Amino acid sequence: MSTPTNSPPLARPARSHKVYRSVEFAGRTLQVPFRRVHLDGAPGQIDLYDSSGPTQPNGTRGLPALRAEWIEPRLKRRDTVPTQLAYARAGIVTEEMAFAAAREGVSSEFVRAEIAAGRAILPANIRHPELEPMLIGRKFLVKINANIGNSAVASDIQEEVAKLQWATRFGADTVMDLSTGKDIHATREAILRNSPVPIGTVPIYQALEKVGGKIEKLGIDEFLRTLEEQAEQGVDYFTIHAGVLLRYVPLTAGRVTGIVSRGGSILARWCLAHHRENFLYTHFDEICALMKRYDVSFSLGDGLRPGSLADANDAAQFAELETLGELTREAWKHGVQVMIEGPGHVPMHQIRENMDKQLALCHEAPFYTLGPLVTDVAPGYDHITSAIGAAMIGWYGTAMLCYVTPKEHLGLPDRDDVRAGVIAYKIAAHAADVAKGHPGARAWDDALSRARFDFRWEDQFELSLDPETARAYHDETLPAEGAKSAHFCSMCGPQFCSMRITEDLRAFAAAQGLSEQQARERGLAEKRAEFERAGGALYV
Amino acid sequence: MSTPTNSPPLARPARSHKVYRSVEFAGRTLQVPFRRVHLDGAPGQIDLYDSSGPTQPNGTRGLPALRAEWIEPRLKRRDTVPTQLAYARAGIVTEEMAFAAAREGVSSEFVRAEIAAGRAILPANIRHPELEPMLIGRKFLVKINANIGNSAVASDIQEEVAKLQWATRFGADTVMDLSTGKDIHATREAILRNSPVPIGTVPIYQALEKVGGKIEKLGIDEFLRTLEEQAEQGVDYFTIHAGVLLRYVPLTAGRVTGIVSRGGSILARWCLAHHRENFLYTHFDEICALMKRYDVSFSLGDGLRPGSLADANDAAQFAELETLGELTREAWKHGVQVMIEGPGHVPMHQIRENMDKQLALCHEAPFYTLGPLVTDVAPGYDHITSAIGAAMIGWYGTAMLCYVTPKEHLGLPDRDDVRAGVIAYKIAAHAADVAKGHPGARAWDDALSRARFDFRWEDQFELSLDPETARAYHDETLPAEGAKSAHFCSMCGPQFCSMRITEDLRAFAAAQGLSEQQARERGLAEKRAEFERAGGALYV
Repeated sequence: MSTPTNSPPLARPARSHKVYRSVEFAGRTLQVPFRRVHLDGAPGQIDLYDSSGPTQPNGTRGLPALRAEWIEPRLKRRDTVPTQLAYARAGIVTEEMAFAAAREGVSSEFVRAEIAAGRAILPANIRHPELEPMLIGRKFLVKINANIGNSAVASDIQEEVAKLQWATRFGADTVMDLSTGKDIHATREAILRNSPVPIGTVPIYQALEKVGGKIEKLGIDEFLRTLEEQAEQGVDYFTIHAGVLLRYVPLTAGRVTGIVSRGGSILARWCLAHHRENFLYTHFDEICALMKRYDVSFSLGDGLRPGSLADANDAAQFAELETLGELTREAWKHGVQVMIEGPGHVPMHQIRENMDKQLALCHEAPFYTLGPLVTDVAPGYDHITSAIGAAMIGWYGTAMLCYVTPKEHLGLPDRDDVRAGVIAYKIAAHAADVAKGHPGARAWDDALSRARFDFRWEDQFELSLDPETARAYHDETLPAEGAKSAHFCSMCGPQFCSMRITEDLRAFAAAQGLSEQQARERGLAEKRAEFERAGGALYV
Repeated sequence: MSTPTNSPPLARPARSHKVYRSVEFAGRTLQVPFRRVHLDGAPGQIDLYDSSGPTQPNGTRGLPALRAEWIEPRLKRRDTVPTQLAYARAGIVTEEMAFAAAREGVSSEFVRAEIAAGRAILPANIRHPELEPMLIGRKFLVKINANIGNSAVASDIQEEVAKLQWATRFGADTVMDLSTGKDIHATREAILRNSPVPIGTVPIYQALEKVGGKIEKLGIDEFLRTLEEQAEQGVDYFTIHAGVLLRYVPLTAGRVTGIVSRGGSILARWCLAHHRENFLYTHFDEICALMKRYDVSFSLGDGLRPGSLADANDAAQFAELETLGELTREAWKHGVQVMIEGPGHVPMHQIRENMDKQLALCHEAPFYTLGPLVTDVAPGYDHITSAIGAAMIGWYGTAMLCYVTPKEHLGLPDRDDVRAGVIAYKIAAHAADVAKGHPGARAWDDALSRARFDFRWEDQFELSLDPETARAYHDETLPAEGAKSAHFCSMCGPQFCSMRITEDLRAFAAAQGLSEQQARERGLAEKRAEFERAGGALYV
């Protein structure tokens, strides 16, 4: 495959552009972003959900503080639990809810009710004013997350911000910063100030750096200080592996791939070293008390997720899931928003059980899954092995899909890998939206298919998930401008073009003034004479 | 994504090689090919199904005639219906059945019974002696087909043979030559003489060339002459669009994308031009009579398959499928083998209906589907949109999956596209085998996952569907030879390596002499003291 890689990262093809729809709300005008695609044919134009944020040509100078004036009055009122969940329960529709509702094309009240019930979250730290609010819940569009972050081995701050921009340009709805190397604070700061999407982290990584990498030295005080530092910066959700309980660790001993979650293995080792219960579990209340002050959402981590087909749906995985359900209720008591992390490697026939159990055990809190990868045999192509599982579990009800890049299991993703991962997951998420019958989801497919049938090549490219690649592939075989309005393409050539033949058939039917229904009613035998009168010229 | 593209096409990494297992059958020794992967760890070695054929460094000189001495006695006996179906019904196990049974790891008698029942086919023209026999049926491994072929616009003979070799190297089980340009006969001859896998064609393309591209001039005589020419050359299966009936054509008038099958649109136009029934349908007996003499299998074409989500599972598609069921019975009367073509574009929630209807209407003849693509919005990535649908329909029971390349809808695939398409479909087929619980399918995943957990990098690469790409991706971040035996990798670095931590946990458990079961039985409270005695050294 020869994906073009040298094009400028933020250039947009000319036939589509960002538009802001004005939404009046509580005396303000909210400016809600979409990507508008102008079409030569029906429906003329189409507005697509857009997560790319304000245009910023490769810079790291920071985005405008969209939410600052929404948040200010809440701080002045000294709301002690300024979470979207608390407002929703109190019957209050926030600016964030109204904004996100407009993006989804639903009512603000519907959004409020879903958040109040815990079925959706709106991750939005009060210290992340640059955020364009969005929703994670199974009654909304399926979202995708892209992981970025440096490690001890590679990457730098500029590159991480570029990856963030690259990821949101192609459609990432949230981004997790998984940095573990040096400059972890400064990297996160640069990412947050430039991010229009919620940023998630796994705070145990930084906490471990702070104790010199000695797992047994980890403790709740250092951990809470780390949470506070990250919450102050504006992190929107924290992965917290509070469900890795001491008694679950032996359940992993017989696994083919043991514990593959980094956070999970750190906590498991801590539990055994001290032979005490996971301090994230025993101090969960204190963690909630801190997070509610900033409205940081929980992403309750699946530290015992399966790392191979052999380990899927085992006792360890489901034991932890049950505990995550218990912790969900605890977090909700504090007014903190919660989503639940899941899968890893799961064969197709075992995927649905994951969704069913998660809904039942976790009280319908949104599910957020990595893949799952449906086979272990394709390193180098795990964006594909996992897009298969992701599409299926998204259809079954998962609210957000954590992407996997082609480098999974092999190395750290570069920008091209981020692009490949994001596109594969946009495919999975949209396929799931269509299969769920999400209102309006299929309009996008239909618009593209109509463009394809009409040979409106430019419309087809522009409606593509990746217009640049679609255009480049087409131009490899038929580069001439004229070919883009030609009524055939390089696959069949003019003679064999099935679309052109069908067009002729339709034109014929139209010339006869026959609707499909009439054609059937009048009967084919009677039509024969008409067809013959119309003559052969049509069928050259 | 930076897939390496300049490596030599037929070079094999050193740690795996082709082996031939000797199978005694009827006084002969059959040499059955596998790819044997030697492993540093358990299980020591693993033999994988291998469709790549005798090694042939980029040549077009032709393969050995493996089947010549099997076929000769049948011709001497003047068998009038020398089809695998006829032999199977007569209780005869052929060399081909024994060979294919050994590849699948099942008994010859089981293979014979499946073929006799029409639930599997063994496509093997008596004029294609170079063929290594294989099976298509839902009780066997899911197979994949790769399409190649030149058009009026691009490609030449050498390049088509190179694509064939490239496709089978990565795992294509059959190849369809869809050439429509000049040199159609010579291109096909070169492909057949160099192909270890069954070759399929769509003879209507060549028949149309013979009448100067004038669809209305097509007729049964020219068509039968074309079939004879191709059957004599050794084509193993023909796509025949005999189910596109005159009365079904109006059913497509209201579609978003009309008729997208090239063959389907040609026949539809013929039907309307003449206002007569499809001549492939009315002369089906004559076609069967010809095909049975060579043992060419039917691939009954789905001329009315949906070309967009909007058209999925509509009246036209299922009307044709019903007719294909009727034709299946007709072909079986003649002793001709049959499979049924299906899908195109189908959203996930409508996939199963396709499989269920096909099994019921077509009497369990093997299903052979293109994709299906589960969304229309990703031109440039349709190997992924369709691998999702292909994996699912394979799990539901489809016997062979026709690949889609990244160039689908945009241009003609080059070698890199063929590779990308084949790998995506090997993923889908293997994921389906695992989900179906196919005996032994998961052993491959487990072997790779064990290698991954043990940091046996070379074993992991070699077990990959595409070892070269896996190795190249790994080496981008950690190129040193030493890194391939390192007990960590570039994703997490040594400190955070969850696999290494789990290894330590296991070592600890082993040092304690505790099995998982014992650990649970003795209770965690009692173990506490032991853990503390074992000391902190383990957890540095």
